[in-house]
Amino acid sequence: MIETTFPHHLTKRSIRAALEEDLGLAGDITGNAVIAPDETMTCSITSREQGVIAGLPLAINAFRVHDPSIEFTRKMHDGDKVEVGDVVLTIKGNSRAILAAERVALNYLCHLSGIASLTAKFVEQVEGTKAAICCTRKTLPGLRAFQKYAVRAGGGRNHRYGLDQAILIKDNHIASAGGIKEVLDKVRINASHMVRVEIEVDTLEQLQEVLNYKVDAVLLDNMSPDTLKKAVALVEGRAICEASGGVNLQTVKRIAQSGVNLISVGALTHSAPVFDFGLDEA
Amino acid sequence: MIETTFPHHLTKRSIRAALEEDLGLAGDITGNAVIAPDETMTCSITSREQGVIAGLPLAINAFRVHDPSIEFTRKMHDGDKVEVGDVVLTIKGNSRAILAAERVALNYLCHLSGIASLTAKFVEQVEGTKAAICCTRKTLPGLRAFQKYAVRAGGGRNHRYGLDQAILIKDNHIASAGGIKEVLDKVRINASHMVRVEIEVDTLEQLQEVLNYKVDAVLLDNMSPDTLKKAVALVEGRAICEASGGVNLQTVKRIAQSGVNLISVGALTHSAPVFDFGLDEA
Amino acid sequence: MIETTFPHHLTKRSIRAALEEDLGLAGDITGNAVIAPDETMTCSITSREQGVIAGLPLAINAFRVHDPSIEFTRKMHDGDKVEVGDVVLTIKGNSRAILAAERVALNYLCHLSGIASLTAKFVEQVEGTKAAICCTRKTLPGLRAFQKYAVRAGGGRNHRYGLDQAILIKDNHIASAGGIKEVLDKVRINASHMVRVEIEVDTLEQLQEVLNYKVDAVLLDNMSPDTLKKAVALVEGRAICEASGGVNLQTVKRIAQSGVNLISVGALTHSAPVFDFGLDEA
Amino acid sequence: MIETTFPHHLTKRSIRAALEEDLGLAGDITGNAVIAPDETMTCSITSREQGVIAGLPLAINAFRVHDPSIEFTRKMHDGDKVEVGDVVLTIKGNSRAILAAERVALNYLCHLSGIASLTAKFVEQVEGTKAAICCTRKTLPGLRAFQKYAVRAGGGRNHRYGLDQAILIKDNHIASAGGIKEVLDKVRINASHMVRVEIEVDTLEQLQEVLNYKVDAVLLDNMSPDTLKKAVALVEGRAICEASGGVNLQTVKRIAQSGVNLISVGALTHSAPVFDFGLDEA
Amino acid sequence: MIETTFPHHLTKRSIRAALEEDLGLAGDITGNAVIAPDETMTCSITSREQGVIAGLPLAINAFRVHDPSIEFTRKMHDGDKVEVGDVVLTIKGNSRAILAAERVALNYLCHLSGIASLTAKFVEQVEGTKAAICCTRKTLPGLRAFQKYAVRAGGGRNHRYGLDQAILIKDNHIASAGGIKEVLDKVRINASHMVRVEIEVDTLEQLQEVLNYKVDAVLLDNMSPDTLKKAVALVEGRAICEASGGVNLQTVKRIAQSGVNLISVGALTHSAPVFDFGLDEA
Amino acid sequence: MIETTFPHHLTKRSIRAALEEDLGLAGDITGNAVIAPDETMTCSITSREQGVIAGLPLAINAFRVHDPSIEFTRKMHDGDKVEVGDVVLTIKGNSRAILAAERVALNYLCHLSGIASLTAKFVEQVEGTKAAICCTRKTLPGLRAFQKYAVRAGGGRNHRYGLDQAILIKDNHIASAGGIKEVLDKVRINASHMVRVEIEVDTLEQLQEVLNYKVDAVLLDNMSPDTLKKAVALVEGRAICEASGGVNLQTVKRIAQSGVNLISVGALTHSAPVFDFGLDEA
Repeated sequence: MIETTFPHHLTKRSIRAALEEDLGLAGDITGNAVIAPDETMTCSITSREQGVIAGLPLAINAFRVHDPSIEFTRKMHDGDKVEVGDVVLTIKGNSRAILAAERVALNYLCHLSGIASLTAKFVEQVEGTKAAICCTRKTLPGLRAFQKYAVRAGGGRNHRYGLDQAILIKDNHIASAGGIKEVLDKVRINASHMVRVEIEVDTLEQLQEVLNYKVDAVLLDNMSPDTLKKAVALVEGRAICEASGGVNLQTVKRIAQSGVNLISVGALTHSAPVFDFGLDEA
Repeated sequence: MIETTFPHHLTKRSIRAALEEDLGLAGDITGNAVIAPDETMTCSITSREQGVIAGLPLAINAFRVHDPSIEFTRKMHDGDKVEVGDVVLTIKGNSRAILAAERVALNYLCHLSGIASLTAKFVEQVEGTKAAICCTRKTLPGLRAFQKYAVRAGGGRNHRYGLDQAILIKDNHIASAGGIKEVLDKVRINASHMVRVEIEVDTLEQLQEVLNYKVDAVLLDNMSPDTLKKAVALVEGRAICEASGGVNLQTVKRIAQSGVNLISVGALTHSAPVFDFGLDEA
Repeated sequence: MIETTFPHHLTKRSIRAALEEDLGLAGDITGNAVIAPDETMTCSITSREQGVIAGLPLAINAFRVHDPSIEFTRKMHDGDKVEVGDVVLTIKGNSRAILAAERVALNYLCHLSGIASLTAKFVEQVEGTKAAICCTRKTLPGLRAFQKYAVRAGGGRNHRYGLDQAILIKDNHIASAGGIKEVLDKVRINASHMVRVEIEVDTLEQLQEVLNYKVDAVLLDNMSPDTLKKAVALVEGRAICEASGGVNLQTVKRIAQSGVNLISVGALTHSAPVFDFGLDEA
Repeated sequence: MIETTFPHHLTKRSIRAALEEDLGLAGDITGNAVIAPDETMTCSITSREQGVIAGLPLAINAFRVHDPSIEFTRKMHDGDKVEVGDVVLTIKGNSRAILAAERVALNYLCHLSGIASLTAKFVEQVEGTKAAICCTRKTLPGLRAFQKYAVRAGGGRNHRYGLDQAILIKDNHIASAGGIKEVLDKVRINASHMVRVEIEVDTLEQLQEVLNYKVDAVLLDNMSPDTLKKAVALVEGRAICEASGGVNLQTVKRIAQSGVNLISVGALTHSAPVFDFGLDEA
Repeated sequence: MIETTFPHHLTKRSIRAALEEDLGLAGDITGNAVIAPDETMTCSITSREQGVIAGLPLAINAFRVHDPSIEFTRKMHDGDKVEVGDVVLTIKGNSRAILAAERVALNYLCHLSGIASLTAKFVEQVEGTKAAICCTRKTLPGLRAFQKYAVRAGGGRNHRYGLDQAILIKDNHIASAGGIKEVLDKVRINASHMVRVEIEVDTLEQLQEVLNYKVDAVLLDNMSPDTLKKAVALVEGRAICEASGGVNLQTVKRIAQSGVNLISVGALTHSAPVFDFGLDEA
Repeated sequence: MIETTFPHHLTKRSIRAALEEDLGLAGDITGNAVIAPDETMTCSITSREQGVIAGLPLAINAFRVHDPSIEFTRKMHDGDKVEVGDVVLTIKGNSRAILAAERVALNYLCHLSGIASLTAKFVEQVEGTKAAICCTRKTLPGLRAFQKYAVRAGGGRNHRYGLDQAILIKDNHIASAGGIKEVLDKVRINASHMVRVEIEVDTLEQLQEVLNYKVDAVLLDNMSPDTLKKAVALVEGRAICEASGGVNLQTVKRIAQSGVNLISVGALTHSAPVFDFGLDEA
């Protein structure tokens, strides 16, 4: 996979809000009281765990938005694997400014590296199978674009970004339309030709019915690995097979071995534990 | 503790951004294609776990900002304990609107209830000791006020909200000022009389030196329960004793038994796993 | 086609900006100088042309955002055909408020009805063929969601909303990747499974090559009706055929008769002449 | 006329909104999938029509806001006449960035150049008469400052920018005040000394009455060229004479020959067809 | 003068920013700690001085934006004269909410009433003369529309709202253009017909030269009352005469008696002392 | 006291709003009409009074945000004492740009220097006593962070920035809780350990009762210097003593001589007269 572009067009607004959240009106009252205004420092951000990093552009920009004169030397890039003690970035500049922006920078970097690292663990489990790991819309408000980027940095793929990007037909929609045929008719008539159509099925019977029509993907929800295997056989390559439900690091390998193309994991974005970085003075 | 006020003055901006994140320009293209514009539905948000809930006002307002005509019946309140299957909210209104705002509403509710529930587990561990559980500034960008509220809903307390609310002197500050006496002198001269002063110490020797001066609190960083016990004895009630570092559900009880007043836990806000709720049609 | 939902989640920000643009700091200095503050009026918005209307929710909300006490009676709905003299809306309320918001309300309604009416003329031309009319990303900055909605109100369809919604491979991309096979390989590897893939071709030879691979749609750019016919025959239903380039009300019928599925028309959103409405006192 | 300053203080907000509109959360998923992240390109924006250009600063800044490292060579300036094939700008930089911002840049440039070119055609028609061509408040929401600038670039003049800039008394105002004398009395008493006063009249009788009082300008609405001539004669230079209503490229010359000072044309900003530019790789 | 409309279209943004400024992320930590969440109170805002009030709509909306369920009874209106002890507003609602928004509401009301009251004192001084009192662009950032409204509430008039509303030619402009004739030529050619033109003169000689041309107003800067008298005589009603410089409550009467039409006073908006109101529980 | 950091993280939003307030959509129509677009000028900001300056970073950034190519030479710094005629800043750049941003830049500088200078006068009065001068929350909406900074520049100290920074218990709170003991109990239980607690008392009896409990500060409201002296004696250093009410330049010295630690003065931020600066061409 080639390196994807960071969603730079969204960073400034997010970083400004995060800095204001931490600095309020009064700013860093500790630094302002005890550090001389012209003191400078050199420090580095060091990994305290093993994993995959993501979010360096946000961390760097958090410092830069606060003080454009701070200088950086990148030692690593998003998507890189790190070991305990690896320096990912060195920072040089005004001490008050660096300490005032430190927490915001680390909050982005630690959260996104946590996502990338968790994704990488899932990806590792499914190596050798046809399955890719992907995220969901179960993201934290205001952070979706960054979280989905972190999933890619960890080797995962993105499901639709929002309700606006693709059609995903669920139980409610089928019930409202009056059946699988009816809902797919409505989609064909009403939806743009430029959006993919996926439909959720809970049983092999439902799947069988769906396969009478043309869909881009089927979401096989909460099926056991054995049932998934049968589903994949039924589909015969006519649609992308996505498994979801009950996926964790213990179960994902068996799910992947069923032959599905995609396994979606909400935990990547809603429950990834933080990745531990420290900022240490040189 | 009396019920705290939800940070309502911050909800609209956050909710609008979250809705735009999920709806983009095109909106819910699935619902718009397959559900009749005037269809209505009644549904409920049901707990799928045991824990403590937080974030109902955000969930309700996510629906309301999207469509002010949606109606709600609250079955539970923030801070309540829930069991699997408990209905926390019923919702009635336009089907397209409810399904379009559902994910945003649940993303808030599941994340914040995850924080409240994790907090409650820590709080339970320290019952019977003098220690309270509190959060840190290791929050997710843009969500701090809501996350800190969720900690309170779970029975925890808040540390300072931001760099602007209280003085917390760390290694860097002591080094920059030239010593503990010097840094506390600078604080006394430069800081407002209306902010508390806490200082981080790593050893009992440092603590001993600090106690020559007046501080509101001492942050006892990464000390073993035994060392903490000695520290508490040294302090003799002259300052609030806060323990931090290496705190998890396995260690927190022994830490609390050292006699500290506060235990700060970054994981409450940076690593709480999501709490599982479902939205089911009635 | 069923009625699509208006992009209500985007209206407030747009309307507020439009009102501030017209009212500045000083507001309607004419009305404030000559109309009594408590005077009320009843008036109606009347069509002065024949066509299809769009944008009533924006017009109504422009008044409402300025003064929530203004009352409305809708006589028509978006997508309705109107004749000269048809009343589409009656408005009752404070005179100063109505006159202050009038221009903003009409600017939305006249522009969007212009788009809907132009779209309807194109749609009428292609009646009886397989072709649908759709818009492009050649929209006016800040108005895309509303303009694309107006196209739908006029009976057209939407192409992708933005660069984020679907893959559209153009000359530049093919050149950069090193060929058609190469670019499609990259897309397969790097893009999400939830986005459609369209590729632009300028000649039948290019089309022939493209058809060796799987794509959702082909954009047949600047081809004559005869060449389009051959292209459609080549494709044999394996991809959606979209024609673009040189489309106007004179040429669109012959283009449609080539058998293409879609005809994209930039003019719908970048060059639609305004539709004439008047606001008259009752 | 000397060159007017572009409304630079308004560009960033508009451009950011336009970029987010096109890039969403996911960005240019085509470029990100198929173009190497460090690829660079050189390209130029070329005119495909004859006309007058406007909006280069917005086009350049659309690229710059997206990627500050993109470099430009200006070959033309706003207000310049261009022929088919004229290069107006060359652009050099990162390929992904250039292609991601291209559409937004062109959407501004094509729309504003369309306005400037249409204005220039009207201006050409009235050459040799006393009349200047000016625009109205019938602008597209969010774009007024840029549209009015484009009118100036095309050789036109601006009417009031908004309701806050000048007094324009219409039928409603006269009726509400109880007559022409009464409305002008109210203006004299209530309005600032720093704003001009114009009054709309539909007949020569009304004009006659108006001329009993002091006004800066009269708006002669929907009068035939002959009636306009009589109106100009009546006014005898005591006020600026503005003609409006029924103005198009066929009628404007005769209207101008009536001797009026100003002819206002809503179409300049509400119905100007786009001007065609292409972005071609060098 | 008839009652002017409050700039309601600008209130929400200002009030939200002001509330966030006072409440931060944590809100009213005092009220939240000590007042029961469902406690209600009735209170009133009482004048503690004699003067003229302005800003009631902002005060009311500050409470309303914070909590829409708070109820009000207006006892007075903007522009009313108040005595010590007059109740201007009674307020009933949730205690926490009222106390949380109180300071913001009073900050608006006290500042704007201070401006209205100071204006009224100047207006009183010039009673019986031809002079009106007006404000300048020397306003406090972000508050201009409200400050200029308060001046009107106090019986004053507004000078231009901003650089965009009228032409005011100063020394710099004359020097840049190369003389008075040259600068007025440029204005005639380049400026819109819908904006007034005022020119600043420092001496009677300059005034004499200016009177060779047509201007709407002359700004007689820093002239003594005697010189002003001569200036007014020279002008002979051909332009509005505005005096500025050295105006205070001691000097304004003699300046007014010179016969000028307008006296502009920067102090109204940049130096008005606060007006004292108290919020007392019923 | 060491130099505090300017709240730079808040400047851009404030300056942009202030520039838009003055420039509207049309910009500086005078400069645009009469000054050549490429003309440059050199000018300086000169003090016309004696006092203490504050706000230079805002003034400089007001020019820079409008035109980043303007160059500056700082002659003075915030907190410096200036005499009549002192040059504080020289400015070089495009004439139109400098004149367009001048008023906004001066509006910040004059207001904040007014606050710093008034603060310095109060500070001078209390020299030799134990008392520091501090500001209140009676600030002007949107300007609090800058105003509180100006107080520090003038030698004063800041009281709490907002309701979120510290506990201040007033009459209402005591009444609501049911007494002094009760309110302090609630604070102890409900409030964070990281916020200081101050309580307002009106009489020595109330003070006596308060001193039975632990508080950080007592606000001695509207007491005479003699009563204040007795209060200070009662407190015996167990809490910070703050005097408020009836403080002005005439009374402040005697209040300070009572031995209080702090005197809060609302006038610093709500009623400081402007400080006079001029911008003169070199």
